[in-house]
Formats: sequence, structure tokens, C-alpha cells
Amino acid sequence: MTTPGNLLYAQSGGVTSVINITAAAVIETARRYPETIHKVYAGKDGILGVLNEELIDTSLESPEAIRAIRHTPSGAFGTCRYKLQDPDIQKTEFKRVVDVCERYDIRHVLYNGGGDSADTCLKLAQQLKVRMGNVTVNHIPKTVDNDLAITDCCPGFGSVAKYIATSTREASFDVASMARTSTKVFIIEVMGRHAGWIAAAGGLAADSTNSIPLIILFPEIPFERGRFIQRVSDMERANGYVSIVVSEGVRDENGVFLSDQGTRDAFGHAQLGGVASVVANMVKEDLGLKYHYAIADYLQRSARHIASKTDAEQAYAVGQAGVEYAVSGRSGFMPAIRRLSDEPYEWDIAAAELHKVANQEKMLPRDFISEDGFGITDQARRYLQPLIHGEDYPPYKDGLPQYVRLKNQLVQKQLPANWRDGDWTIWSWPLTKRASCWTSRSVLAAITTAIRCGWFLQTSSGSMAFCRVWNSVRPAIDPDVVG
Amino acid sequence: MTTPGNLLYAQSGGVTSVINITAAAVIETARRYPETIHKVYAGKDGILGVLNEELIDTSLESPEAIRAIRHTPSGAFGTCRYKLQDPDIQKTEFKRVVDVCERYDIRHVLYNGGGDSADTCLKLAQQLKVRMGNVTVNHIPKTVDNDLAITDCCPGFGSVAKYIATSTREASFDVASMARTSTKVFIIEVMGRHAGWIAAAGGLAADSTNSIPLIILFPEIPFERGRFIQRVSDMERANGYVSIVVSEGVRDENGVFLSDQGTRDAFGHAQLGGVASVVANMVKEDLGLKYHYAIADYLQRSARHIASKTDAEQAYAVGQAGVEYAVSGRSGFMPAIRRLSDEPYEWDIAAAELHKVANQEKMLPRDFISEDGFGITDQARRYLQPLIHGEDYPPYKDGLPQYVRLKNQLVQKQLPANWRDGDWTIWSWPLTKRASCWTSRSVLAAITTAIRCGWFLQTSSGSMAFCRVWNSVRPAIDPDVVG
Repeated sequence: MTTPGNLLYAQSGGVTSVINITAAAVIETARRYPETIHKVYAGKDGILGVLNEELIDTSLESPEAIRAIRHTPSGAFGTCRYKLQDPDIQKTEFKRVVDVCERYDIRHVLYNGGGDSADTCLKLAQQLKVRMGNVTVNHIPKTVDNDLAITDCCPGFGSVAKYIATSTREASFDVASMARTSTKVFIIEVMGRHAGWIAAAGGLAADSTNSIPLIILFPEIPFERGRFIQRVSDMERANGYVSIVVSEGVRDENGVFLSDQGTRDAFGHAQLGGVASVVANMVKEDLGLKYHYAIADYLQRSARHIASKTDAEQAYAVGQAGVEYAVSGRSGFMPAIRRLSDEPYEWDIAAAELHKVANQEKMLPRDFISEDGFGITDQARRYLQPLIHGEDYPPYKDGLPQYVRLKNQLVQKQLPANWRDGDWTIWSWPLTKRASCWTSRSVLAAITTAIRCGWFLQTSSGSMAFCRVWNSVRPAIDPDVVG
Repeated sequence: MTTPGNLLYAQSGGVTSVINITAAAVIETARRYPETIHKVYAGKDGILGVLNEELIDTSLESPEAIRAIRHTPSGAFGTCRYKLQDPDIQKTEFKRVVDVCERYDIRHVLYNGGGDSADTCLKLAQQLKVRMGNVTVNHIPKTVDNDLAITDCCPGFGSVAKYIATSTREASFDVASMARTSTKVFIIEVMGRHAGWIAAAGGLAADSTNSIPLIILFPEIPFERGRFIQRVSDMERANGYVSIVVSEGVRDENGVFLSDQGTRDAFGHAQLGGVASVVANMVKEDLGLKYHYAIADYLQRSARHIASKTDAEQAYAVGQAGVEYAVSGRSGFMPAIRRLSDEPYEWDIAAAELHKVANQEKMLPRDFISEDGFGITDQARRYLQPLIHGEDYPPYKDGLPQYVRLKNQLVQKQLPANWRDGDWTIWSWPLTKRASCWTSRSVLAAITTAIRCGWFLQTSSGSMAFCRVWNSVRPAIDPDVVG
């Protein structure tokens, strides 16, 4: 290499409580290679910041500020649920990314996200290679869903697992002490629409010294009301109470989400509330037992105050490795966490080829789920336990975790803003595919009208207007646009 | 005093993450006065354990075990939502309590609960005095609701406040970083059916260095949909996202709980889900904004992992003071926390007369709520801030808080079990009064039948059967039987 170039870092998809540890690792490691990397630019709100030429100059942040984001949840530069257009159908967006990279002398890209962004990453590597030659593009793993291939686990998951296991244990102790005259069934709803990794972590709440009558409802196991109710009833009779961990992704025998029962209230509104309230209702109807339910929602993935130390260390390690791949000229990889032994837990980082990671989903193995489908096996425990090990407390001020915000100063724009002009694409396919996800009839109506008007085939301002509609409604329609 | 007597300790009502610190303080302090206190007996499941002669002999627990319950949430001996019969109407239950106290040479009673149990405590003091003469009966404060009179704050509240403020801050950081393409309105539902103390604590999430567009919905402020939606819209437009802390006790202009909209689904079921889903639905209908909501439920009051150090210290101090009152022969008091200064925060314990505490509810002062009704004032901050100060982490094992369970060995029963025989009371009054709280029609039908059959006027086995029905359904019907 002659003169040093710049590195582009972008976060993608849902955030975690430790993704900023990865961001800090990227910036801190890059600063150790001034002969190769001049500046680290971060996309404001991820890849959208690249498309919109909103690049954050991280060189303006002090080492102290960068160190402080290590203990701050959320995405320090913003992130987005946005999947770039497929370059085989419509090159506009990829072309724009390449334009921006070229203008800002980007020689290294690190894309920090889940399975979908690994795919984007792969395509970006190809496009950039064609136009700019020697650019490295690597992916850094992140997802609370823990569903990336090759890597043993995903940064972000261990902390959610710790939070859910802790919360389930705490609430179960609470309920146990009051069950005689109060709540007999406690339900906690956890994330994981496709895979039951987080639900499985709830199983850690109970162990040999903390017996808790626990039922886990996995998305992998078709829900049967009769069997479930029987189990609740048996456990309640034997123990006086039951705790239930339910994954938001639980489906019935027909593959329909339990939380999407299509029921309407008196005004015709879709019944709101997550799967926890559906399960609670069954318990009440069939057994008449008093219940309470909690919905952890974003609390679980932002709970930096109880992050796993192991998770925090791995989040740093993958960020560091990503920069090292870049510096050594490696491209098309993802630093994967490799488990060397369960006990004592040992791990290292190994380079996984990106094409083996992209668009893969690692499901919870069947042998992690007990035969009856309501619990976890010892195998699952061996896998999960080390991931929640250790505490990584943030500093506190005035009784609250001291989270920080960066200056996030944007570079002066240099490129034309009207880059989408002339853009068009065939929207009908994805629209059809995603129609089943739509929940809001008014949005559906608006888009149907747009399609009927032929906007999706128009170029110039027509498609621009539709693009705006589409881009603003897309995440609302399909929360899994980017994992 | 000649020979030492025994002390009876009972927990009452909903548990907190620090009530066991009070229990440990009672036992540890009592052990320092062997010349006065022989044994500490704990009621299994609170006062029910006294009625049923299920007394736990805490002298069988090691000092290490007692120390360990300090960092364990829930009620270590069990607790109950059970209000003793009014002795002016029906003396059976009070008589039984006195019988048990007499048989076990109880000379001191410490009742650990909220406002209702302070009242029970007061009545018990009178009854015991008549029968046994020189017995001390004192109340120890505990309630996450923070609504006890005289005391500046209630043990249990500070930790919930810390949990809610922390969780709200964490989730708000999360949402802020993703709002551009994802969730724009995040809602967290918190406890506090009558008073907005916990909701107010959510306001601490935002401060001068952590700006968060935050709306708080208090039970004290009648909810107006139009004003609320306007505020959400304004804030979302200005900041890109909004966080909302909603108290489960929010009511509309007519005093109807927002969570009790009386709506039915297609099958005629009452709409489930807490107030968070109701508010979320409004945001969706009126503004079309993407939302997420969390329901903290029991997680908030059992989150020992993030207990407030101040709260933990106060929970210990009141337990210690309770024993000291007993030893010095004082009766009819509650150790109250007295605030000496805001900054630096200083407090001590002062004896409050029980009759001034019983059946009082301390509401959130209006000047703690901002003029527009959506936020907290500086005055509220000055009050709340010291209560969440400091961390009191539990020890961890295998990545999870190491909570313990005591042996809880019961004494051999010595009294007749058929003490309720001949018991009868006039149930119609409370039944009528509580009818409005009933949610389950089948329970209502069962009880109506029971009344029609005249069970409530029968003696012997008839009333026993009804008592069993009643005692098992009462907490389900009215969760606030005992605060």
C-alpha cells in the first residue's frame, strides 16, 4: 500500500446491548494502523447514511468518547432496517454506494449485522471490486437472534440470554413466594421470531439448585393447546405455580403465529398484544388460574446494565478481527467465534467465508429441546451456559447507567443528491411476497392504489414518490427486511 | 423481662426485591438480643401461616443462609394477599392469631407490609393486649407503590424506580438509533394502580445529559386521547421518536381504567393485554406510527440484580429498628424513613404512630407532575434521585444471580386444626362492593350460587367450603385485597 485509505463502518438491523463494543473495537483497532487506515467513517443510520452521503467522521471523537460507547447500548451511529435493491435487478443503489466509497477513498468496508447484511456485504464486495479494484469488504457478526451460520454464537445474544434467564429466575422467585393466594401462572414473552435461541436461554433460570417449574414454548415446536394446558395444570398442581417462557414466534399446528389469531374486538380492530396475552387467555379460559405476564420487548436487547462479560469480550474480538482482516488485505470474510471447549469455556476467532454465512439461518438444534418440547436439554445448557458468564457493568452516575452519545459530526456532502432520478424497479414481486405480513389495511390500500396507478413502473418523479412511500412503509410492514 | 419470649415476623402483600433484606435485618438483629428474644418465628406465607399454625423456626437457619437472603428477591418465607376478618364483625381469625401467639409465647410481632397490613397490625395490637397483656406489635414498611403515609419513602420503591428509569433509558437509546426506518414510539407499562410514583421514576431516564423525548401517563392525570396524540405527534416530528411511560392505573376522564375498555374479541372474550397495548393501538390508529411496547410486570419488582443501594440500606434499617422497638417495649409504631436533606441525601429512622399510617394512601403530589401533565418537575427529581442511588449487586454463579432458598422448617403443630368451625360472617357486603372488580363471569356465577344457597350464613362445613372457595378466588377477583 502506498498512502493510507479510509474504512467505512456501518451497523445494520436491530441493535444489541453490545454492538457499540464492536464499533469501539473497530475504531480503536483502526487507529493502531495509521499507515493503512487514515479515517474510519461510519454510516449515519447504517447503509442509509452511505446512500444519503451522511458519513460520520469518527476521527473527531476522542479516545475517551470511543471507550465510553463500549458501555452504551443501541447503535452509536444509528442503524437501519433497509435492504439494498438486488443489483441483478436494479443497480442504482449499489452504484450509489460505490460512488460514495470512491469519493471518500474507502478501501475497506466493515458491515456489522445479521444474515441479510452478510448477503449485502457479499454483493458489495463484488460491485466494489469491479469498479475500484482492491477494496476489502468484510462482515462483522451481530444479532440477538443467534441465527448466523458458521459462528458458534453471535455477539448480542449472550447478553439477551443473560437478561432473560435472570429475569425469569427473579420473577419465578417472586411468584413462588406469593402463589398461595395470588398469581399461579407467570408468562414472559421473549424475542426470536424464527428460532428459539432466546427462549431456550430462559431455561437457564432453573438449574439443580434453583428448581423452578418452567415451561418453554419454542417456535420450533408446533403449539398444541391441549398438551400445553395439561402441562400447566400438572405443574401448577405439583408446585403451586408455573413459569412460562414464550417465544414471540410460537406457531400452531398450521404454522400460524399464535400472536396473529386474526381476532377482532368490538370495533373491528385487530386484537393487540403479543403472544403472552394469548397464552395467558388460554390459561384463564381452560384452567381459571390467576396469571400475570411480562413482555420484555426492547428491554431485553438494550439491557446493557446486565450484559454478559463473555458476550462483551466476543463483541470486541470480532470488531478487532474485522479491522485486522482489512489491514491484511483479506476480503469476503466474517470473523466467526469458534468454540474450542465447553468447560472450561475456550474460544477463538476464525475467518468464515462470507458466501457460507449469507442468507443462512442457524436454527436451534432439535436435541437442544427436551423430548416433550417444553424444556431444554443438558446439551443446550452446555452450549448456553458459557455465553452468559461474567458481568460487564457500565459505570453509574446519579443511580443510573452513564450512557453516552457521540458528536457524530457529518462530513460535508460532495456528491449530487438526485442520484435516484431515473430509478425504477419491478415492485410487484416483493409486494406480493410480503402481502401476508401486512397488518395495516390503510397501508395496504395506499400501496395497492400506488400499484394500480402504475407508479412502480414509472421512472423519475413518479417512482421517486413511490420509493419514498415504499421506503417509509416497508419497515413497518415487514420488520424483518434486514435481520 | 424475666425469660426471653419469641418474635413473630410475617410478610404481607406483594413482594419487593429487597423485602428479604428487611427479613434478614429482623433475624440478625433479634439474634443480638438473646436475653429478650429467644426465637424468631416466621409465618409461612405471611399471616396465613399464623392462621394455619405453619410457623417457620428461623433459628434453624445458619447466619450464612440469613445473610444470603439479603440478595434474594421475593418473600423468603412466603407472603400472601389476605386481609384478616374485621374483628368488629367476626373475631374468629383474630382469635386464632392470638391463640397461636399465646401457644408459641410470642411477645413481639413484626408485620412487614403496606397500608392495609398496618391496619391489621393496629387491630392485632389491641386484640393481643386484651388477651396477653404486654405484647409489642409493630409494623415494618414495605411496598413498591411508595404510598405509605409519614415515611418519606417505602423500602422496595427505590429499586423499582431504579429498574424502570434504567430500562426506559436503555430502550430509548435503542429506539433512537433505529427510529429512522423502524419503531418510532416505544411504550413501557409500569406498576402503580393508584399512585404514579413508579411512573414518575421513569422520568429520571431523561436528564440534562441524556435528552429523551419522554411522555409519562400518570394515574393522577385524567387521560385525554386528543391531547396525548397531539403530544406524541409533536415529539415524534421534532425528535424522530418518542418514549412513553404508562402507569397501569391510567384512567380516562370518567375514571375508567384505560386497560378496562370492555372491548370483546370475536369470541366474546374480554380484550386482554395491559394499558400499553391500548395506548399503542391509539398511536397506530391516529398516527400510523410503528410502535413497540414492553410490559415490565413482575420483572420490575423482582429485579434484585439492579436494586438500589439506598433502598437496600433503608430496607435493612427498618427491619433493625422494628426489632429495637420490640426490645425496648415500644408497640404500635412503624419505623419511618425521615429525609433530613436532599443533597447530600441524608436520612434517619423515626418512629411513626401506627394509627397515623394505617389506611392512609400517600399520593404523588401534584407539583411533582409538570403543568401539562406529561412529565416530572425538578421537585420530583430532587425527591426521587437519591432513592435510586448506588448499586447493590448480588453475587453471581454460572452467569446468573445466586439466589437462595431457606430450609423453612415448620414447627410441629400443637393446636386444633378445626378452629374455623362455627365461623360465619356476612359476606354479602364485600361481595357487593367488589362485584365491580370481577372479570371472570364463571367465578361470579359460582359465588352467586354459593350466596343463593345460603352458604355464607351456614356454620361448620358449609362455611368452611365457602371459605375455601372464597379465599382461593378472592385474590383473583381483587388483587388489592392486601396492599
